[in-house]
Amino acid sequence: MRVLGVDPGLTRCGVGVVEGVAGRPLTMLGVGVVRTPADADIGIRLVGIERGIEEWIERFQPELVAVERVFSQHNVSTVMGTAQASAVAMLCAARRGLPVALHTPSEVKAAVTGSGRADKAQVGAMVTRLLRLSAPPKPADAADALALAICHIWRAPAQNRLQQAVALHASKGRTR
Amino acid sequence: MRVLGVDPGLTRCGVGVVEGVAGRPLTMLGVGVVRTPADADIGIRLVGIERGIEEWIERFQPELVAVERVFSQHNVSTVMGTAQASAVAMLCAARRGLPVALHTPSEVKAAVTGSGRADKAQVGAMVTRLLRLSAPPKPADAADALALAICHIWRAPAQNRLQQAVALHASKGRTR
Repeated sequence: MRVLGVDPGLTRCGVGVVEGVAGRPLTMLGVGVVRTPADADIGIRLVGIERGIEEWIERFQPELVAVERVFSQHNVSTVMGTAQASAVAMLCAARRGLPVALHTPSEVKAAVTGSGRADKAQVGAMVTRLLRLSAPPKPADAADALALAICHIWRAPAQNRLQQAVALHASKGRTR
Repeated sequence: MRVLGVDPGLTRCGVGVVEGVAGRPLTMLGVGVVRTPADADIGIRLVGIERGIEEWIERFQPELVAVERVFSQHNVSTVMGTAQASAVAMLCAARRGLPVALHTPSEVKAAVTGSGRADKAQVGAMVTRLLRLSAPPKPADAADALALAICHIWRAPAQNRLQQAVALHASKGRTR
């Protein structure tokens, strides 16, 4: 399974592509940051994010795009830009028929470190270890994007089993 | 001046096109709502908003798109969807090279009713009067989109004069 993780942001939008299946070593295919100038108009910045995400999807052909779920409670000053950048990422994926998966920051932290309250250094260290990199990806947004992709690959089997159980239950309900 | 006003939302995104200049009677060219199903995936909904906004821009060829400025303080439960829908509207405009203008809800209310605290009924009544319509546009999102376009047309001269003054000051600074 090949997943593009996106840590949304207007100034720095982290992107990372991870391939693998749960229970086996994972491979990083690419990592980077899509940047837009803070002094540009918001519309221009969103176009920059769109172009960047499009390039990453075209280059790496992921099967799914995992985006951080944005909450309005946190970081009130930047949350609107984060929500807008995440909208562009989700739009780029859905427009191509790619499924979009959302994971909360604590789900991502828990998946890669075992704790939903892990700090950025801990996440970076675990991403480095899990992908067998020589150093933590910089900036933190890039490492977070990889962590999102890892989180999705590891959680996907559980989510799929849940969906299968729900579907099975629904089909039994119909035949009863 | 022809302006497309967008009152962003995922379930109901109000759109309205107004033509005119400040100080003269305004004309409504079109009004409507782009809807997306509440039970669809967020990515699919954003693609629906994109298609709808694209259709309105192509059909009416506005010179500018005025979008409601979203604040994270208000309506915490729906603000993320509003921010995401507004991102798609701004993206559609900027991608075509159309300028994007943002106006706050209180700027819009003050422009059309004289009070920044006017209620929806008052805004609807003034939009009906100013555009010489037979009845207030329904739903309220559609009326709000028209009010945004009116607000922009009326505020634009002041904003343009301000921009000209800034540009003049900057050019004087350079030649000094």
